[in-house]
Amino acid sequence: MSDDGIFLRNSWYVAAWNHELIDGRKLARTILEKPVVIYRGASGRVVALDDRCCHRAAPLSMGRIEGDDIRCMYHGMKFEPGGKCIQIPGQDIIPAKLGVRSYPVVERYNLIWIWMGDVEKADPNLIVDYPPLADPKWRGLPGYMHYQANWLLIVDNLSDFAHLAFVHTHTLGGSEEYAYKTKPVAIEKLDDGFRVERWHMNADPPPYHCKVIPNRADKIDRRNIGRMLIPGIFLLDTMFAPAGQGAEKGVLVPGTRQYRNAQFMTPETRSTTHFFWNYLHDFDLDNPNIALSLRNSLEEAFHEDLAIIEAQQKVFDADPKTQLLAIGSDAALTYFRWLLARRIEAEGSAVRAA
Amino acid sequence: MSDDGIFLRNSWYVAAWNHELIDGRKLARTILEKPVVIYRGASGRVVALDDRCCHRAAPLSMGRIEGDDIRCMYHGMKFEPGGKCIQIPGQDIIPAKLGVRSYPVVERYNLIWIWMGDVEKADPNLIVDYPPLADPKWRGLPGYMHYQANWLLIVDNLSDFAHLAFVHTHTLGGSEEYAYKTKPVAIEKLDDGFRVERWHMNADPPPYHCKVIPNRADKIDRRNIGRMLIPGIFLLDTMFAPAGQGAEKGVLVPGTRQYRNAQFMTPETRSTTHFFWNYLHDFDLDNPNIALSLRNSLEEAFHEDLAIIEAQQKVFDADPKTQLLAIGSDAALTYFRWLLARRIEAEGSAVRAA
Amino acid sequence: MSDDGIFLRNSWYVAAWNHELIDGRKLARTILEKPVVIYRGASGRVVALDDRCCHRAAPLSMGRIEGDDIRCMYHGMKFEPGGKCIQIPGQDIIPAKLGVRSYPVVERYNLIWIWMGDVEKADPNLIVDYPPLADPKWRGLPGYMHYQANWLLIVDNLSDFAHLAFVHTHTLGGSEEYAYKTKPVAIEKLDDGFRVERWHMNADPPPYHCKVIPNRADKIDRRNIGRMLIPGIFLLDTMFAPAGQGAEKGVLVPGTRQYRNAQFMTPETRSTTHFFWNYLHDFDLDNPNIALSLRNSLEEAFHEDLAIIEAQQKVFDADPKTQLLAIGSDAALTYFRWLLARRIEAEGSAVRAA
Repeated sequence: MSDDGIFLRNSWYVAAWNHELIDGRKLARTILEKPVVIYRGASGRVVALDDRCCHRAAPLSMGRIEGDDIRCMYHGMKFEPGGKCIQIPGQDIIPAKLGVRSYPVVERYNLIWIWMGDVEKADPNLIVDYPPLADPKWRGLPGYMHYQANWLLIVDNLSDFAHLAFVHTHTLGGSEEYAYKTKPVAIEKLDDGFRVERWHMNADPPPYHCKVIPNRADKIDRRNIGRMLIPGIFLLDTMFAPAGQGAEKGVLVPGTRQYRNAQFMTPETRSTTHFFWNYLHDFDLDNPNIALSLRNSLEEAFHEDLAIIEAQQKVFDADPKTQLLAIGSDAALTYFRWLLARRIEAEGSAVRAA
Repeated sequence: MSDDGIFLRNSWYVAAWNHELIDGRKLARTILEKPVVIYRGASGRVVALDDRCCHRAAPLSMGRIEGDDIRCMYHGMKFEPGGKCIQIPGQDIIPAKLGVRSYPVVERYNLIWIWMGDVEKADPNLIVDYPPLADPKWRGLPGYMHYQANWLLIVDNLSDFAHLAFVHTHTLGGSEEYAYKTKPVAIEKLDDGFRVERWHMNADPPPYHCKVIPNRADKIDRRNIGRMLIPGIFLLDTMFAPAGQGAEKGVLVPGTRQYRNAQFMTPETRSTTHFFWNYLHDFDLDNPNIALSLRNSLEEAFHEDLAIIEAQQKVFDADPKTQLLAIGSDAALTYFRWLLARRIEAEGSAVRAA
Repeated sequence: MSDDGIFLRNSWYVAAWNHELIDGRKLARTILEKPVVIYRGASGRVVALDDRCCHRAAPLSMGRIEGDDIRCMYHGMKFEPGGKCIQIPGQDIIPAKLGVRSYPVVERYNLIWIWMGDVEKADPNLIVDYPPLADPKWRGLPGYMHYQANWLLIVDNLSDFAHLAFVHTHTLGGSEEYAYKTKPVAIEKLDDGFRVERWHMNADPPPYHCKVIPNRADKIDRRNIGRMLIPGIFLLDTMFAPAGQGAEKGVLVPGTRQYRNAQFMTPETRSTTHFFWNYLHDFDLDNPNIALSLRNSLEEAFHEDLAIIEAQQKVFDADPKTQLLAIGSDAALTYFRWLLARRIEAEGSAVRAA
């Protein structure tokens, strides 16, 4: 394992939605700059291996699944889910250590979680808890986008509500008027990230919400509770309550609608990112068009982000020495980047000490 | 400012034709490897700023013009034409030095001139004087081409009439017969470049000229006076006079036609170039098809140059150590490259001494 | 000449099929990372020169063939087949040493052979002898493919019959059953490569063979004798004899069919390769569809190889430190790579000693 100081390795990352593994697909996906092949074996078990045969480096994703094993289709070497080579055509003796690296994987919340660090530390209990993703009271359609940008630029983006007014006026909503006069929300520091809560009282419902509700003219009290967690997970609980009915005191009157939004940023490389997301709603569960509309709205908004974030990446690519100047609203992203850097550094120290 | 020795920074470069700024366009253009945004403010003033917000490096060319100012449309920071930040949404105090770099610009001859070096040295009087570009007695259509080649390869090309016979036989004209027996024209060294004068007596009119005149079979006395000026400006005064009427003694008989050709090479990067040009004529001014025909002819000829110049660049890219051997006709380009290198070196020395 | 240790320079490489030079074509082809222009002069002589003019590096492949000479069409310099400059427009004196590098070429077997090393060592007798390529008893259609991969990855591929069963089941044929139980064939070490002979008794005829014979259900005794020679030449003599008739004892009964397969791997760069091939047959010589069918079948099979070999190259590109672990069937490729490395090293030592 490289202690190059760019990625936190001892952490669970989302590698895929499990629907990406249907029909016997051998998913070739690079994670933290390691090419990995991910597949579901005949037993149902999900397997993740280095996507190169230890013999002549042919990609195993061009291979053939046999039971829970995979066979390289260049010279026919076969590997079991643990990565060990179990057959070499034309050769009886197989060296005991011959094989490829196997990565711990866990299937939870319809997501495939992968652990790119030390195997013995891969405790499934460390996977973030977010029950709405598996709760039938919430509905949503899973999404995926690929970014030509470092994952922390997406983390930055999500760490600051200030961009809503300028980037997402016509999608997620956000008023410039409001942005000019509103102070940045204080963040609550967590051991593994930060938490932020923001209320916007007596506001217009945002465009994406208007598309899925009947009473679009009514003012709302809007509450967002966001958590940004290491290594790059954003969980946002959103509530739109009829205005002035006491939502801020915990009164939930009829017509209150809630969303649960989970976003997972997994570095593909230092300058590209896998972005997984699901925007869940808790109303009209029998109407599949709600989830479809929300997925479309969010996808549109994420593409607004993508345009500006990929443009940022190009600026950094063109001039790696580009200086950034923090303003008040950067407290959240500054804290998160500091926290992650400290964790990465600790991991590197541990590797060097070992 | 980098004293990397590749570009002369204290010099006026053409950044754009002013028609590129109509309709509120925010022109994103890289000049001397610096990404710049150029726009015309509400007052009519042209503004050039670093094309990256000082906050999170989002391109200002994705921003919004407000009066003469521009607002970054990521988190809403606003900058005045001098580059100073004048608004941060959600923050009352703006650090005095917060801002982006502003570049001096001058609008002259329908061109936007930019100064990429020390601001205090940006004297508009240093802009080259070429009155035909603004004189109603001359007509032409401005052109732009992008080269995947170092700007000095284009300067080289224009520094040597020898290529006319081989590259432009069917466009600008040039006879091989003539090329084989003609010695290179002596150059007149100038402080900021060189001047060359060439007469070609009793010649056939070149193809592009034939397209815009009635009497195509008549021989002409052809005179070219060219000046190549630092940092990469080529000004060519061309006269086609009826042959044998004494044009070389200053006799201008009816039927004499003149052209004024201005070409501006502005480095985008060390291996790509912005090429601006206008080929002006002084006859049949009420016939717009003359300018159109000339623009087309010249564009065709410039593409003949582009093919060979971009091929040169690929050779250098593939083998940066490629050796070149000078021949007699290289006196002009050798002098110009020497002059420019001396100026760049002096600029670097000044930076280091400061 | 660079002694960079990547390529063997003192060796004949295939540069082109001679049909690539018809119609006055100036073939621009990079060989061992040197851009070369190859053309046939008016006398019929084939010429190979550095594809850049010694003056301003314009490609000579954009030039004009004049007799056996070539003229650069930038400023008109002319070069004879030996590379010497013989004309400079506008200049009477030509420096004696002015010119470009000329490479020895030999036309044999419809192939253009080039020597990229020391001219005095370019002995045409060193060109590999393979008479079937010029013998009217054999017929075939010459093929060319371009690989985005190091040429030794193709050599590796051809050095091991083990991949047939996994890569070419439906084209060249190869049974997995057979692969699992068959030991790698012993190689015979040669001074300039290796030889391998393999018999497959009482086998099904392979798919590509079935397409060109009437009796597809009959079992065959299949014999392959392959030679892999420095710098990257694979010569394969194949015989399909009716099964059980004594072919292994040298009895050639009617219905026996033979193929001669020549493949030439010429490095374009360290990560791209020119691949020339011809698959010759000795039966039904009057039926042109046989050669066409075989060319198509082999091309299909080579694309199966290409897919996996280019995937290997991408793995190495992504991680140049990729480790490979040899298995028993790698004896041939291991020997060949060792032999070539020794030859390259000796060449480098000779250069340094000189």
